[in-house]
Amino acid sequence: MKNEKSIEKLLKPHSIAIVGASDKTGKVGNMLVKNIANSSYLGEVFFVNNRSHEIEGREVYSSVSEIPKDSVDLVVIATPAFTVLDIVESASEKCSQFIIISAGFGESTEEGQIREKKLNELAEEKNLTILGPNCLGILSPEWGLNASFAPSLPPKGDTAFISQSGALAVALIDKAKVLNVGFSHVISIGNKMHISETNLIKYFANDKSTKTIILYLESIVGGIDFLGAVRDARLAGKRVIILKSGKSDEAQEAIALHTGSLTSGDVVTEAVFKKMGIIRAHTINDIFVLASLSHILPIGKKISNIAVITNAGGPGVITTDEISICRNLHQAMLSEENMKELSEKLPNAASVHNPIDLLGDAKLGRYMDAIKICIKDENIDAIMVLLTPQDGTPSGEVAKFIVEEQKNTDKLIITSFIGGESVKNSQKILREGNVFHVGTPTWVVDVLNELVANDSFEIPELNEVNQEDGINKKTEKILNISSNDNNRGLYFHEVKEIAREYNIPISKSWDVTGGLGVDTHVVYPCVVKVDNPNILHKSDREGVILPIKTPHELIKAITLLKNRFTESNTKIIAQPLAKIQIELIVGMKQDPVFGSIVIVGIGGIYTEIINKTEVFVTPISEEEIEKRMITGKLSFLFVGERGQRPYNISDVVDIVMALQNVSMKNKTIKEIDINPLLIYNNGTNPNAVDMKIVF
Amino acid sequence: MKNEKSIEKLLKPHSIAIVGASDKTGKVGNMLVKNIANSSYLGEVFFVNNRSHEIEGREVYSSVSEIPKDSVDLVVIATPAFTVLDIVESASEKCSQFIIISAGFGESTEEGQIREKKLNELAEEKNLTILGPNCLGILSPEWGLNASFAPSLPPKGDTAFISQSGALAVALIDKAKVLNVGFSHVISIGNKMHISETNLIKYFANDKSTKTIILYLESIVGGIDFLGAVRDARLAGKRVIILKSGKSDEAQEAIALHTGSLTSGDVVTEAVFKKMGIIRAHTINDIFVLASLSHILPIGKKISNIAVITNAGGPGVITTDEISICRNLHQAMLSEENMKELSEKLPNAASVHNPIDLLGDAKLGRYMDAIKICIKDENIDAIMVLLTPQDGTPSGEVAKFIVEEQKNTDKLIITSFIGGESVKNSQKILREGNVFHVGTPTWVVDVLNELVANDSFEIPELNEVNQEDGINKKTEKILNISSNDNNRGLYFHEVKEIAREYNIPISKSWDVTGGLGVDTHVVYPCVVKVDNPNILHKSDREGVILPIKTPHELIKAITLLKNRFTESNTKIIAQPLAKIQIELIVGMKQDPVFGSIVIVGIGGIYTEIINKTEVFVTPISEEEIEKRMITGKLSFLFVGERGQRPYNISDVVDIVMALQNVSMKNKTIKEIDINPLLIYNNGTNPNAVDMKIVF
Repeated sequence: MKNEKSIEKLLKPHSIAIVGASDKTGKVGNMLVKNIANSSYLGEVFFVNNRSHEIEGREVYSSVSEIPKDSVDLVVIATPAFTVLDIVESASEKCSQFIIISAGFGESTEEGQIREKKLNELAEEKNLTILGPNCLGILSPEWGLNASFAPSLPPKGDTAFISQSGALAVALIDKAKVLNVGFSHVISIGNKMHISETNLIKYFANDKSTKTIILYLESIVGGIDFLGAVRDARLAGKRVIILKSGKSDEAQEAIALHTGSLTSGDVVTEAVFKKMGIIRAHTINDIFVLASLSHILPIGKKISNIAVITNAGGPGVITTDEISICRNLHQAMLSEENMKELSEKLPNAASVHNPIDLLGDAKLGRYMDAIKICIKDENIDAIMVLLTPQDGTPSGEVAKFIVEEQKNTDKLIITSFIGGESVKNSQKILREGNVFHVGTPTWVVDVLNELVANDSFEIPELNEVNQEDGINKKTEKILNISSNDNNRGLYFHEVKEIAREYNIPISKSWDVTGGLGVDTHVVYPCVVKVDNPNILHKSDREGVILPIKTPHELIKAITLLKNRFTESNTKIIAQPLAKIQIELIVGMKQDPVFGSIVIVGIGGIYTEIINKTEVFVTPISEEEIEKRMITGKLSFLFVGERGQRPYNISDVVDIVMALQNVSMKNKTIKEIDINPLLIYNNGTNPNAVDMKIVF
Repeated sequence: MKNEKSIEKLLKPHSIAIVGASDKTGKVGNMLVKNIANSSYLGEVFFVNNRSHEIEGREVYSSVSEIPKDSVDLVVIATPAFTVLDIVESASEKCSQFIIISAGFGESTEEGQIREKKLNELAEEKNLTILGPNCLGILSPEWGLNASFAPSLPPKGDTAFISQSGALAVALIDKAKVLNVGFSHVISIGNKMHISETNLIKYFANDKSTKTIILYLESIVGGIDFLGAVRDARLAGKRVIILKSGKSDEAQEAIALHTGSLTSGDVVTEAVFKKMGIIRAHTINDIFVLASLSHILPIGKKISNIAVITNAGGPGVITTDEISICRNLHQAMLSEENMKELSEKLPNAASVHNPIDLLGDAKLGRYMDAIKICIKDENIDAIMVLLTPQDGTPSGEVAKFIVEEQKNTDKLIITSFIGGESVKNSQKILREGNVFHVGTPTWVVDVLNELVANDSFEIPELNEVNQEDGINKKTEKILNISSNDNNRGLYFHEVKEIAREYNIPISKSWDVTGGLGVDTHVVYPCVVKVDNPNILHKSDREGVILPIKTPHELIKAITLLKNRFTESNTKIIAQPLAKIQIELIVGMKQDPVFGSIVIVGIGGIYTEIINKTEVFVTPISEEEIEKRMITGKLSFLFVGERGQRPYNISDVVDIVMALQNVSMKNKTIKEIDINPLLIYNNGTNPNAVDMKIVF
């Protein structure tokens, strides 16, 4: 099922049965019992256990079916793995929502994997909604419910945390108070057998109590559904923040073409995040700071010009340094009038330009003046107040003043009191007064920059891409023939046919395997190449000879290649020698999760090393490609940098769209490289000199 | 003076005079009095002030000359700026070491700048050693001395901190206790008029009590002396850690050539750090973690294989993820025997591979077993123990156990207990027990990787470079002629002459300004270019036409360029059209601080965009260039990647050495670009197609 209603029932049940409830301290079943008792949950709770009769003074049922009610909203199971299947099956008569805490499923032995498979089948058959197995449970502060074995319910708030690691959820909950963060729900998804991040993101997109959705994921599943769920959440004005581990994933399949290596490891994840405006947390600390900042900063609030106020020169310089290299943040300039007022109030040696340096002997008064003036200055969107524990500066008083000011202004005040013991108390005053204070200043600047960039990100359409139906039969036929010959790739004349089907401007070529026939009108200068469906990297194997200027040279080159490549199925082709201005690579590969991925980058043999590549997760529209071409890593080609005439964007857009089209109509194709694709800024048409297709 | 002896006297004086000593709370002169009184300083202290007679029950002298002693080791001055010069002059009869706390010098008005200039002259004239002005003073825990207005003396230890920001010094001192860091000396260098970071690094290179030298700098001065001081410190087995602000320095001089833009902003600083094995801190937080880690980790200790022990799956995965992308760290593999022992002790579901996952319900016993086995396993160099506050895990007991184990083993144990309130107390136990605990795990991994890389870095020679003496007269003559004509650059025929002087393989060219004379033996195909000493970017101005295949085309091209460039001093040249394999740029520019900088990178018009550039700070040896070519950003060319034959390193080394040579013999040259330098992997000689010289 996994629809909104069933997830709502799971997160906000009116009645719960705990299967495996126990009175033995240290057992998970006991923690569940205590945690539910200690939370302010108002619904009914039933304990189920086939060995006890009473726990905490309450009756214990030997099975869910014995509970004297027609239906229960949620069954939480914490019994050994081998018992779970039967329990679910029998309980499914009374309940459709389950949380399975028990481990011993897909994450463990082969036996566990079989168990998980059966459980999943049961869920489908009986139309159940199952969270887990192998999870911590859920904590729903807004529902007063702790149905987990995490020690305590965090404060209520507008952040949902979905975690593939129960332990990280525990750590974040524990840190919540210091971070001033509250939660709508904390959900441990465990093996995410049935309910995945996609289902939950979709749910929280419509959940009024949730403004920020934070996830820790070790894998992403769901492909386009995941994109769609994120899109819904983003369009509903919510931030999606993800910490994704597995950056260094070495369990990659063998890579055949450049496109494969340009999209290996973490690159597709990065592209997904970029496409959808997902904020990427890189460390646990990022999660902490992002949670705290997202809580305090309404989405869409204009944060661009930052004023820095400091009693410490060095940290002030370091902070403005960092601001000035952030694309979305700027050093605020005070209005002339306010600058004048400030300079009258501060000592001569102080600086009224950003950073506003109150000097090492700054007393409360200087902080008051500077903060008040910055609050009223319309050129300033946010104020960063730095403080180091100098002898003269009363940090506690400054903290109290800031707390009062923040209460009366919409302007974001970010504080960073840098030091140890001497500033501990003032940091506490700030936090308890709901003023943002986390870590050292540069760090906050980076995170703020990320948030601001993503808030204003335009969410792409996912449906309205011109998706042509049906397979391309001619292409399929070519692939079948080659496949029957046990080839991995295609001959160039086959590639040419496919390219023409999709309007890809493929280079001319002449088959010169048999030498120069009467019908072979080779144009000079030309290049001669080996052509064999199983030789994917011709240059690496010295299978390319150029330039060829005369028929005599051509004959020599053909003989040379024939001697070098003696496989019987080898052909030799000639192509016109093209003038090179810019070599691009445009490629496609099938990703197991996100379907076809299309790339555009600087081509040539060192394409991986230069690595100026844009990666697109389909579906993509022409607008999305164009936008990225103008703003991304290849923008220098299309905006006319260094006095160069700009290259024609639509040449590239058309070919990216064509590859997307191929990937939809001929799904057996695993990978395509067009490399080099020659493009020109003088009106010459683009030229796909080589194109490889792997299926 | 600024020699070791005088700096030693300044940092460890036997007698001090405080000029401007005061009994008025809040005045710097009062803070100094109190701070010296509160520290355990054993030397003599004299108060000087021309308005009081007694402070803190002690006699006050109206001037340093009245002090009843022939000489004083150190005079600290905290009087208004305008009085300082006279005070120093008169006191110089009794003392050669000064700390000038007072502001109002070079950092302020023009008047202040004049004052600082005079003070500097006085220092030279009287052979004085002056710290400041505009500084916080010094704190020398090992000498029991707080001659600063920072509130308290930090613990004694082996770290020296040199700061261009007094406030940052205060913050670090305040944080010292949490970081478990102690200091030999903390020195605020203020305007560093006379004593700079270079003098102090040199001093600490020989200071037995100092093992780590940490600096916060807003500028680096001293050029080769700075390099030499760092070299001494590194060779003496000390770490040098620098936080340098001003990354985004926009106050750059106008940039003429590619080399200028490839070495703008922060690039030279980065190259200096890379050359000398300086550890770069990027944030204030980095300083904190590096200080703490450097304190606990002896330099040169082998730290390569890391075992991660955790009760939290997610954080374990994130940490091993990070380790696996660090070049110098690896995930440890336990010995078979130990793995077997561990798997017998841990529950079945636990993982005995890295990360060693003790599961969410881990009690003390599992941590004990895992830590003990890791300590005895010889495949493990360091152990990271992670913990999140799960219900079953007694974090305090685990902390106490680790403290005891760390006492009895040389193996580094790094801890990260992640959470808020629940782990606060155990974090304290760890810190107080001298176990490393700072921040979240990924962060520590990055910093550790940096430390390890730099510890094993081979410090380059600075003197034994083959420096030829004297200027190259022919070159100088050419430059003079062009300079007399008010040119900014040179004609290509002049460039060719200079190139030949230095054995740079410059391309052939023919002057075709006057058309095709009888003596002009142009070879086809060729390229035709505009040649004007003041046109530095020909391509950007459409001053290059190619390919030219016939005399007829050549004549047409000459006419075209003549019409396009009508300046009377414009020449037209032809060059053979070279075959392109790899285009490099090799360049030189004069840096105001570090002298000549030489670069090698991927060339062509998009050289800044591709930005694969190695930057060398001279003096450089052939060995240094070769090493960087093989290990750096251009290594793909020289190690034969992607089945390509490797290019010849010595082609590049020779040209880099030649440019260094030019920069030493013709110092009026400000910038050189050889772009493109064509290199080949088929035995063809390198070819400097174009070379620009700006003076």
